[in-house]
Amino acid sequence: MGRWEPNARGRLAKAALELYGELGYEQTTVAEIAKRAGLTERTFFRHYADKREVLFDGSSALQELFATAVAEAPKSVAPIDAMMAGLEAISTAFDGRREHSRRRQAVIVANAELRERELIKLASMSTALADALRRRGVAEPTASLTAEAGIAVFKVGFELWLMAPEEREMGQLMRESLAELRAVTAHGYAIP
Amino acid sequence: MGRWEPNARGRLAKAALELYGELGYEQTTVAEIAKRAGLTERTFFRHYADKREVLFDGSSALQELFATAVAEAPKSVAPIDAMMAGLEAISTAFDGRREHSRRRQAVIVANAELRERELIKLASMSTALADALRRRGVAEPTASLTAEAGIAVFKVGFELWLMAPEEREMGQLMRESLAELRAVTAHGYAIP
Repeated sequence: MGRWEPNARGRLAKAALELYGELGYEQTTVAEIAKRAGLTERTFFRHYADKREVLFDGSSALQELFATAVAEAPKSVAPIDAMMAGLEAISTAFDGRREHSRRRQAVIVANAELRERELIKLASMSTALADALRRRGVAEPTASLTAEAGIAVFKVGFELWLMAPEEREMGQLMRESLAELRAVTAHGYAIP
Repeated sequence: MGRWEPNARGRLAKAALELYGELGYEQTTVAEIAKRAGLTERTFFRHYADKREVLFDGSSALQELFATAVAEAPKSVAPIDAMMAGLEAISTAFDGRREHSRRRQAVIVANAELRERELIKLASMSTALADALRRRGVAEPTASLTAEAGIAVFKVGFELWLMAPEEREMGQLMRESLAELRAVTAHGYAIP
């Protein structure tokens, strides 16, 4: 029971995603996940608090990586360029994880509670990004708008990446998503 | 008990917001809301399903108004201009409601469950706006990015409006918020 299992965490995550896809998230039990991974429930609970955490355990590390890259971009660059530096940083963290991300996304889209959790994660990310920008000396409402723009680019760029063929890298899709946001907002009302 | 009460709905909403501010949302009961409004609990439940609904009963009408204005903007205008037409439409709906909105916002910010509900509302709005844009013939990812830009402008413009003095109208602040988003995204990486 208590013995060390090689890569138990990764095996549990893989088994969980498979089962969420096959049986549905609600229908899958921790006992089934542990069994599929060839491990015990006790081992599961040494790694994850519950079956939802398997899907969200990378979220705070991702937010930290994103906000740190924004905070540490060269002082001289514009707020949106600091944001783009953050998007580049998280893009490298998704290298080789497209198939995993596709499976995860399919599970989340199918479940209202998980979709809400994902929204909360993105809102928390936006708050952290605005905070990182303010610490760079960016005033309000510029900091909040830049953070919201960054999240919009991330959401849309991420969707494009999930649908794209293997050779299209996330960083490239994030740059295209930002270019599209810029093109979209370039037309519009002038302030009277 | 069952008799008609003049403006019961408005009196209940006003009493609820007052009590949420004074006692906190969690601590307030429907019985207290009804008592403050000089009405019965039974009357409360004829108008609202629960104490949360008092805060969100205008949400679907707002989304409908927003998406319809986007859908019905002149065919010739750019997607972001259709979005701005939607923002103008909802701005008029908030006329004379700044104090009410300030109180509502304070209650929501103080409660995690209500903040989540608000996020879900905004995500649903974004989906409806992207849908309205696609029905105008706007392709993806332009439709989703324009919708996300619209929500970003709305969120920031709404915060500015809550803090602004009386003479600053919401429509004006939404236009300024869009102008700021445009300025923010105008600097940045070129696609290599």
